[in-house]
Amino acid sequence: MTGMLADMREQPDVLGRIAAARSEGAGRVRALRPPDLRGVVLVARGSSDHAALYGRYVIELATGLPVSLAAPSLYTRYGVRPRLDGHLAVGVSQSGQTPEILRALEAMRDGGARTIAITADPGAPIATGADELLEIPTGAERAIPATKTFTAELAAFAVLAEALGREVGSEDQWAALPEVVGEVLEDERRVDWATAVLAGAESVVHLARGLTYAVAPEGALKMKETAGRPAEGFSSADFLHGPIAIAARALAVVCYGWPGPVLADVAEAAELSHRRGAPIVAVAPAGAGLRGDVMVAVPDRTGEALGAIPLAVRAQQLALSLALALGRDPDRPAGLHKVTATA
Amino acid sequence: MTGMLADMREQPDVLGRIAAARSEGAGRVRALRPPDLRGVVLVARGSSDHAALYGRYVIELATGLPVSLAAPSLYTRYGVRPRLDGHLAVGVSQSGQTPEILRALEAMRDGGARTIAITADPGAPIATGADELLEIPTGAERAIPATKTFTAELAAFAVLAEALGREVGSEDQWAALPEVVGEVLEDERRVDWATAVLAGAESVVHLARGLTYAVAPEGALKMKETAGRPAEGFSSADFLHGPIAIAARALAVVCYGWPGPVLADVAEAAELSHRRGAPIVAVAPAGAGLRGDVMVAVPDRTGEALGAIPLAVRAQQLALSLALALGRDPDRPAGLHKVTATA
Repeated sequence: MTGMLADMREQPDVLGRIAAARSEGAGRVRALRPPDLRGVVLVARGSSDHAALYGRYVIELATGLPVSLAAPSLYTRYGVRPRLDGHLAVGVSQSGQTPEILRALEAMRDGGARTIAITADPGAPIATGADELLEIPTGAERAIPATKTFTAELAAFAVLAEALGREVGSEDQWAALPEVVGEVLEDERRVDWATAVLAGAESVVHLARGLTYAVAPEGALKMKETAGRPAEGFSSADFLHGPIAIAARALAVVCYGWPGPVLADVAEAAELSHRRGAPIVAVAPAGAGLRGDVMVAVPDRTGEALGAIPLAVRAQQLALSLALALGRDPDRPAGLHKVTATA
Repeated sequence: MTGMLADMREQPDVLGRIAAARSEGAGRVRALRPPDLRGVVLVARGSSDHAALYGRYVIELATGLPVSLAAPSLYTRYGVRPRLDGHLAVGVSQSGQTPEILRALEAMRDGGARTIAITADPGAPIATGADELLEIPTGAERAIPATKTFTAELAAFAVLAEALGREVGSEDQWAALPEVVGEVLEDERRVDWATAVLAGAESVVHLARGLTYAVAPEGALKMKETAGRPAEGFSSADFLHGPIAIAARALAVVCYGWPGPVLADVAEAAELSHRRGAPIVAVAPAGAGLRGDVMVAVPDRTGEALGAIPLAVRAQQLALSLALALGRDPDRPAGLHKVTATA
């Protein structure tokens, strides 16, 4: 078994622990929250930045407050001093060591923000330097491409959103989450079918929208990292606004959908890509109405917001399976190392 | 002459008019600015969204305030009511008609924000519905891929940033801008050399960072739209954090650089990509120290922040030239139309 698959198989356990601890974590976030909270700023890099994209949606969904993704170079390279009175700043780093994220979070604290670290290591500098910690209980990852870290960060952002505003998932949906992810991990047959489609494509586009949008760029990143295949993630709305010009037979399109307000948008992008000759892999609950040349189903018991997590697990499976089909080692992609020194 | 080239050649004139009117525009923005400005939210789609990415950097550079890019689906699909007291909201749309942008800007106004429209049509609904207008004097575009619109929007964001905070370009740099863009447009020889490199690549990565970062995703989008070639834009920091795994011989890398705090980051990404076998096209001022297999120089008289504009013109030239080399009609890419109905 690859290290990546071993990491992936820990996800039901990790997610169960986050779900069980969520009212405790939410309580600490509420205690830290400025009385007149004005907005939230998130800072991360790589997969964690895709988790922050999810955070951007669920926090604004829950609170209505503006949520922005920091541009770290403004603080680390251009010397900008941010003005963040009344803001929460959230730094995300699996290792808790990435120098750029540490420096950006420090700059935001100096600028008046209260700070929260999301990390796997409670002893890491990002955790000890922040006002509050949301620990993701993942331990270290065996493979370089992040998997259990990513879904744990999604769950942590859902907890954070609920701490600041209204519910993101019901009791039942949170309770179903670990079980659903376990079912997805056990069902590999349809992943193999999809791999046959993806292996024949020169490049792969990943599409989603709204609350589950972050799965598209993350699915594309996983595929690039593990399989070395050009892949790009888009919001279905952005894709229709221009890049669909490249959707042709040499391309495959992976669409992630969920029953809800944006499903029709993703379905439209799938349909238009299909008409241009691109094969479609549809990742969605079976009865959702998203059609593809290959359907890779997920259970529908988590609701749309938490549904990003089982969809992300499907994206991991697709990347891993394609890497193995192409004879690549998914655990150690050439040219990548775990803690980047981006500063 | 293609319509796209005719559009591009109007850029010196359009930019000269924006530069000349900038203190008038800045005065109107300052009059609208809430007394205790808390942050700025930008909403756009496609090329205009890339211009907003530039706006995100220069406004935060000039003010230190948090700047976020809105996620329109939260308002148009999920019914989120944003809470934006003390905020400025800026909607960008060339036509001023895009229903999604109109609805998002309305939702932000209803949520307490004061609103500014950046558009080419002062009679369009986005302009008449907003509290203030920054007109981009481009007229209609002949070609579907936006060119003069994009650089005009960059200039409008620079004006907006200066209205809210410190100077983004000096008097001399603003004065040089139209002339510099004229010189870039006249110098096509190096673009032809670069095209020979790009035509041999299966897909093209565009890299930049910091104040000129937005040129990378826009350069990639132009290349996808006009040449139908897979292309993706990255911050050099994000690229090194993972996607460099795909940098191999089948790929070409276009790097955009400017002397300043992030040049070394872009140069490092270029060097590491080159070692993995990818040919490099370097777009930068000649003496900047960014090296490539082909150098496509730009004059250095505009400074880094306004330098995004001549770099973007180089990106347009590369896309147009590659499209023509591949026998494509850049003016009417298959499957694209001008006003998208994304709602």
